[in-house]
Amino acid sequence: MERTIDLNSDLGESFGPWPMGDDEAMLSLVSSANIACGGHAGDPDIMFQTLSVAARNGVIVGAHPGYNDREGFGRRVIPMTSSQIRRMVAAQIGALQAVAALVPVRVRYVKPHGALANLAARDTEVARAIVESVLSIGDDLAILAISGTALERVARLTGVPVFSEIFADRAYQSNGQLVPRDQPGALIHDSVQATDRLLEFLESGLMPVLDGEPIRLAADSICVHGDSRGAVEMARMLRAELLGSGIRLDSFAGPPPSRGDSVAATSD
Amino acid sequence: MERTIDLNSDLGESFGPWPMGDDEAMLSLVSSANIACGGHAGDPDIMFQTLSVAARNGVIVGAHPGYNDREGFGRRVIPMTSSQIRRMVAAQIGALQAVAALVPVRVRYVKPHGALANLAARDTEVARAIVESVLSIGDDLAILAISGTALERVARLTGVPVFSEIFADRAYQSNGQLVPRDQPGALIHDSVQATDRLLEFLESGLMPVLDGEPIRLAADSICVHGDSRGAVEMARMLRAELLGSGIRLDSFAGPPPSRGDSVAATSD
Amino acid sequence: MERTIDLNSDLGESFGPWPMGDDEAMLSLVSSANIACGGHAGDPDIMFQTLSVAARNGVIVGAHPGYNDREGFGRRVIPMTSSQIRRMVAAQIGALQAVAALVPVRVRYVKPHGALANLAARDTEVARAIVESVLSIGDDLAILAISGTALERVARLTGVPVFSEIFADRAYQSNGQLVPRDQPGALIHDSVQATDRLLEFLESGLMPVLDGEPIRLAADSICVHGDSRGAVEMARMLRAELLGSGIRLDSFAGPPPSRGDSVAATSD
Amino acid sequence: MERTIDLNSDLGESFGPWPMGDDEAMLSLVSSANIACGGHAGDPDIMFQTLSVAARNGVIVGAHPGYNDREGFGRRVIPMTSSQIRRMVAAQIGALQAVAALVPVRVRYVKPHGALANLAARDTEVARAIVESVLSIGDDLAILAISGTALERVARLTGVPVFSEIFADRAYQSNGQLVPRDQPGALIHDSVQATDRLLEFLESGLMPVLDGEPIRLAADSICVHGDSRGAVEMARMLRAELLGSGIRLDSFAGPPPSRGDSVAATSD
Repeated sequence: MERTIDLNSDLGESFGPWPMGDDEAMLSLVSSANIACGGHAGDPDIMFQTLSVAARNGVIVGAHPGYNDREGFGRRVIPMTSSQIRRMVAAQIGALQAVAALVPVRVRYVKPHGALANLAARDTEVARAIVESVLSIGDDLAILAISGTALERVARLTGVPVFSEIFADRAYQSNGQLVPRDQPGALIHDSVQATDRLLEFLESGLMPVLDGEPIRLAADSICVHGDSRGAVEMARMLRAELLGSGIRLDSFAGPPPSRGDSVAATSD
Repeated sequence: MERTIDLNSDLGESFGPWPMGDDEAMLSLVSSANIACGGHAGDPDIMFQTLSVAARNGVIVGAHPGYNDREGFGRRVIPMTSSQIRRMVAAQIGALQAVAALVPVRVRYVKPHGALANLAARDTEVARAIVESVLSIGDDLAILAISGTALERVARLTGVPVFSEIFADRAYQSNGQLVPRDQPGALIHDSVQATDRLLEFLESGLMPVLDGEPIRLAADSICVHGDSRGAVEMARMLRAELLGSGIRLDSFAGPPPSRGDSVAATSD
Repeated sequence: MERTIDLNSDLGESFGPWPMGDDEAMLSLVSSANIACGGHAGDPDIMFQTLSVAARNGVIVGAHPGYNDREGFGRRVIPMTSSQIRRMVAAQIGALQAVAALVPVRVRYVKPHGALANLAARDTEVARAIVESVLSIGDDLAILAISGTALERVARLTGVPVFSEIFADRAYQSNGQLVPRDQPGALIHDSVQATDRLLEFLESGLMPVLDGEPIRLAADSICVHGDSRGAVEMARMLRAELLGSGIRLDSFAGPPPSRGDSVAATSD
Repeated sequence: MERTIDLNSDLGESFGPWPMGDDEAMLSLVSSANIACGGHAGDPDIMFQTLSVAARNGVIVGAHPGYNDREGFGRRVIPMTSSQIRRMVAAQIGALQAVAALVPVRVRYVKPHGALANLAARDTEVARAIVESVLSIGDDLAILAISGTALERVARLTGVPVFSEIFADRAYQSNGQLVPRDQPGALIHDSVQATDRLLEFLESGLMPVLDGEPIRLAADSICVHGDSRGAVEMARMLRAELLGSGIRLDSFAGPPPSRGDSVAATSD
């Protein structure tokens, strides 16, 4: 039986005149694109541009909401109530959906960004706020959660479709959480090392950790960070190795849009 | 035969810690609420709050997109291409729709704000950008346009439902355009004068102008500016006089949501 | 011997089209004005306007820097390093000084706002960052610190002129700290009660607390919050009672500018 | 007699997490750095970082104020009165000066950015607003103006020190104005062509134009845009050719700070 996995990346994280990452290259490599919604990054023009290239490449698109904190790139916890988080997340998803309607392409899932994602990974109330936003909006939106987190658990309880991601370039702890970015060994910059680790995991279902025995993790998708050093190189190698190992790349969020449709409709 | 008219007002124009206008009072008087979408004013919390009170009062809600220019309150023309306007307007409508889904209540129409509305009143390309946003989003959204403007004409051509508004507190020119805000006589601060003028217009279909003979204007709705001096007083008097003259107040955008529904669902 | 005290208030906290508080009234009552610097509130026009009215009224002006967080009005702790705080505070003070040069009037002191002030009250490193900003800028800037806080202590160690404020409308704890805003009894809304408490304190040097015996506090200035309920009324009563008790109102930061000077020079 | 010229570049135009240009490289090549002040680009951290590297390299620093319009990078005219421009420019200069005091280094001059500079080049009232800001702030600030513009003329009338710049990578019109960016031939991307043109101009005092005979232009400084394609390469070649032709590179704004001073003082 053929194995299938998804490659996802955080994209559309430019802002106004400031580019970030090589989105064109990444969108030729990944199967799912988490697109910034104007909160921590992105703006309507960048959303449109990123959504258009994704659609043209048959890449499934998701919303990537984060704190409204451009200076901090959504990596700082901004004190907010869960009601405020629910409304902020809803507003960002809705903004992306409406810009996607111009392409036209449909937003299929939601994956929170940065400090909001980290908080939703451990704080049930924040996780619930995000899930409630997604449920209210409806439209068959799924959630892409970091494997083993509160967000994953809360989403499963509500019946919203939930998928789990692991990281190609981040080290794990034995409790299933990521090693925090500011700790030694947290980021794996070497593409070969990251790729080998992933292939072994996909074979065995066991993920190595920094502080103990390998752990079992659910994985519907592999996240390749778009803004880490050598992101494109790592994604390219990972993709080649996965394909070379007979693993198919396909979004967890269903079949890609036919390539012809959206191109024809994009007159913008 | 009973006559019907709509009263609309620009609401939800607070921002963060800064209140603007008396939205609670206005939402007990008008039949349609144009709600700021986080561009020129508003934020997710204020959107939610305004949408909730509107739903509770059976007031129909519309999106009120404007330039992303809080310092200028959307009253300055920010140079943008029509593609940029299309995406900006879409993002704002989508944000409001998604927050409305949390209430839950449905956004029924779109009315542009300030400098964007003035530009769309005379610039066909800008008008088309706004109409295209609305059409792309779909969901039976109507457009509320200033009577006699390019936006009204462009919207009619595309088949999107379009309704026309006149102003209770603004003077007209013989070409059907509003007298610009910074010119003498542009604003009618006296409630009695404004109300009398409106009642005569609704009787005759003829609107007095500053520079010539009264003109014929289409009117599905009367706008009472929420941020002009004495806005609540004017709205209250206008409402009383209209009702006293046997005119029914009802939104152009269809029947109000039943009051019970949304209240029950609002657990936020 | 005549006693002297200062009355200070947080002013210039409007933003763009959104007014906050009655600055004109407060500037006829206080002797020192803490003026927002475009971070948590204010913008160059509002700074200029507030500085001009202050100068016209002979009110001494200080900078009131806060987190760059308008949505949260500077009342949320935004995670920042002390180096980042030092630079942010410097930029805000410098902005106000340069706008003040247009009036012209001189900025005499610095008082941090909201969450930044609360952090500087208990965190020595944050206090030091603020003091270092003030020292680097020089220009004889003083610091106005909440009485009994880390900021007051750190500033005294560096030789920067430091003055202590107490609050007319806030209750105290026996450790000298303010009762947090969200706790019962934290805010004193009754003007008579607040005034009586202050007069007794000025007589005795002992401040009542919610959880024990009255404590001794240094006090060069009394803060009347501009944004609390009935702020103008409380300031007016306090001022009248202080004057009636033979206490002189004068800024801690030296003699007021002569009223004629700045008016003549203001051609803006 | 040795000839001297200045090379200036717009730097510090990153924002939050988004880098722009190669400031480190440019600061090893130019003699004057125009540093963004948090309006169109930059923030307190980026200001500090850019000012520090400039000081370390003995590069003279100036303020580079622009419209508060990050999305448009200060390249869109935002409708403002001249009073508003005066206050906005003052606030930005003051912010940079105060951050510079932390380095410590002194801001020596002001050069407006983008749409504000273009407007000040042809609109006397806007030019006067900028000059008045500079004069009010004092501190011996000079103005760096595009050669042959209204800003240059207005500044000369007021007695503020004014210096003139020409562009290495922009084509001229016979009226002395730059060819607008969106017109063909406006930008000179070829380093050799740009360098040859400059050397001939420095020899002859005559600048070639797209629409007629070469014109005479005053030139105290040559601007190498930091954000054009191949900016570093062009600056490097220009510098080498100028030095090779026996021309000395020195800021118009006086001798550089001694390299030792600022490094020692920078403990941030």
